[in-house]
Amino acid sequence: MNNPSQEQGSKESPLFWPAYLKDNVLWVLDETLIPAQIKYIQVRNAKEAVNVIRQMKTRAFGQFLVVLNTFLLELHNNKKLSPALLVKKIAQTAEALNNSRPTFPFSEVTAVVVQWAKAALQQKQEIVPFVSRNILGYLNGIRFRRLERVRNIAALLENGDSVLTHCNVSGELAMAAVLCREQNKKVHFFATETRPYLQGAKLTTWELKNAGSEVTLIADNAVGHVMADGLVDKVIVGSDRSCANGDFANKIGTYQIAVLAKEFKVPFYVLTQPSNKVKRGEDIPIEIRDEKELLTFGKRKIVQDAVRGFYPGFDVVPNKFVTKSVPINVAG
Amino acid sequence: MNNPSQEQGSKESPLFWPAYLKDNVLWVLDETLIPAQIKYIQVRNAKEAVNVIRQMKTRAFGQFLVVLNTFLLELHNNKKLSPALLVKKIAQTAEALNNSRPTFPFSEVTAVVVQWAKAALQQKQEIVPFVSRNILGYLNGIRFRRLERVRNIAALLENGDSVLTHCNVSGELAMAAVLCREQNKKVHFFATETRPYLQGAKLTTWELKNAGSEVTLIADNAVGHVMADGLVDKVIVGSDRSCANGDFANKIGTYQIAVLAKEFKVPFYVLTQPSNKVKRGEDIPIEIRDEKELLTFGKRKIVQDAVRGFYPGFDVVPNKFVTKSVPINVAG
Repeated sequence: MNNPSQEQGSKESPLFWPAYLKDNVLWVLDETLIPAQIKYIQVRNAKEAVNVIRQMKTRAFGQFLVVLNTFLLELHNNKKLSPALLVKKIAQTAEALNNSRPTFPFSEVTAVVVQWAKAALQQKQEIVPFVSRNILGYLNGIRFRRLERVRNIAALLENGDSVLTHCNVSGELAMAAVLCREQNKKVHFFATETRPYLQGAKLTTWELKNAGSEVTLIADNAVGHVMADGLVDKVIVGSDRSCANGDFANKIGTYQIAVLAKEFKVPFYVLTQPSNKVKRGEDIPIEIRDEKELLTFGKRKIVQDAVRGFYPGFDVVPNKFVTKSVPINVAG
Repeated sequence: MNNPSQEQGSKESPLFWPAYLKDNVLWVLDETLIPAQIKYIQVRNAKEAVNVIRQMKTRAFGQFLVVLNTFLLELHNNKKLSPALLVKKIAQTAEALNNSRPTFPFSEVTAVVVQWAKAALQQKQEIVPFVSRNILGYLNGIRFRRLERVRNIAALLENGDSVLTHCNVSGELAMAAVLCREQNKKVHFFATETRPYLQGAKLTTWELKNAGSEVTLIADNAVGHVMADGLVDKVIVGSDRSCANGDFANKIGTYQIAVLAKEFKVPFYVLTQPSNKVKRGEDIPIEIRDEKELLTFGKRKIVQDAVRGFYPGFDVVPNKFVTKSVPINVAG
């Protein structure tokens, strides 16, 4: 379960399940090094987990995996504590993870784990096996539903389609592309660069190419041009957070792609994790990241010293731009 | 005339007049090195001129300056040729320049110079002084009208405005910003990075900052976000080529900014060089540049080897997106 990439063989993108436990160490794929290197970072406790999240070594679905697996690490590290202290430790772990990045609803997931720990204490069950079993079951459920969504994405795609995607949807599109080929549907992909982190250039083109697909990289600036020229049949993007009303937050740049899709009448699909915790887009806090990430490339500064940058990490896209959601219930 | 930056002192952006003749050498500002270095390349003949244009060492208005000044170089280099051979040389120079980059209407300008040479031959005038005088007069005319446009841009801007610009408009916005300050109008600028060449990050922020303005760099991806948040009052972009019907070509990414401006009801202004040579946007050939420029950053490859890129250098924006043109008649 925790190292599914090996179970499934080459059809599964490493980005689909980018963190797994082995011998009480969490191995986290360092997505910042792809495609130059495939390297896993070893995470042993909550502090190290917060660091890999904050430094964006992992992202999107990888963050959820790190969050949930971190509880397994901390349960193991503290198994000799008294039940009461162990529950306290779990609550501290939850808080540390919640504070790692503002836009992410880690608190929704961590709250569930804290509840399990409290329930175990109340029911006088052994906390470590009880909570661990629940986390593993929960992860298995997510895995099952994500594989189901991969099939749903493939079903959306038609022979001859040209699909534009932004940032990276953690393996699902690449795996849907494999299914399409098995179904004799030829699909071409446009991946946007996705500045400033270049997840599209580095991750999406890499995994689509590895999946045997035809993929063309374009600058974020060229989306309007390729749509105006009729080169895009569908847009598929992920969502980092979904609202009850259908608004969603995703990587900066998603909003403008949604506006362009509307202008050029291109169907716009979003992969959502429905949740009723947040009512509307306005309620999602947007993380403003360090301007350094925008003002430098690699370690090279690209602007004059006095210039300031503004780098909102995410967009909130209003529901009116969404043609159809392809949901998964991660929280359920 | 040929070194106006020195005449005008610090108010003039080096990008406003980025090439000048001195002792029969054309000194061309290497815009690819800004802001790290301010360096001028020495151009001595048409072959070297084609190289600086093709390698995008200079761009936009700088290209026109290089084209016109190259005739002055070639006239001087070949002044001992017979009148008939000199006219032939001018025609050859025109052809070499015309073939340097597809989207640019160099042929409109070079045809005028060829006509002057033929007229001189026919009228039995000395070709070198006749053609040189005409070119210098023509450049003076352009300079006069561009300075006039700087004043027109300043007149468009109001106290408290936040203006978004894309790529680089060759000094005019920076000089308008100086005028605004003299008129006690406080104006803030957003500059887009403008991938893949980063002209916005490197040139626009640099010259606006040097002009004493407040400027914030954003990723090309963040345009929709800042507009949705009501942070942009006006968009001002340049045009590399204008059509009789009001369509215009400009740096890739301009089209999508125009669509976003319409969606978010932000006035969209374009600095044009009206011409009747091209009727509509569809008639403008779009230069597809080498994918290498997209797949690498500096000299570092950012994608997996097998990945292909698509890099149209320009967009054609339909006239319906333009709130108002701020014209200059470069050809007149």
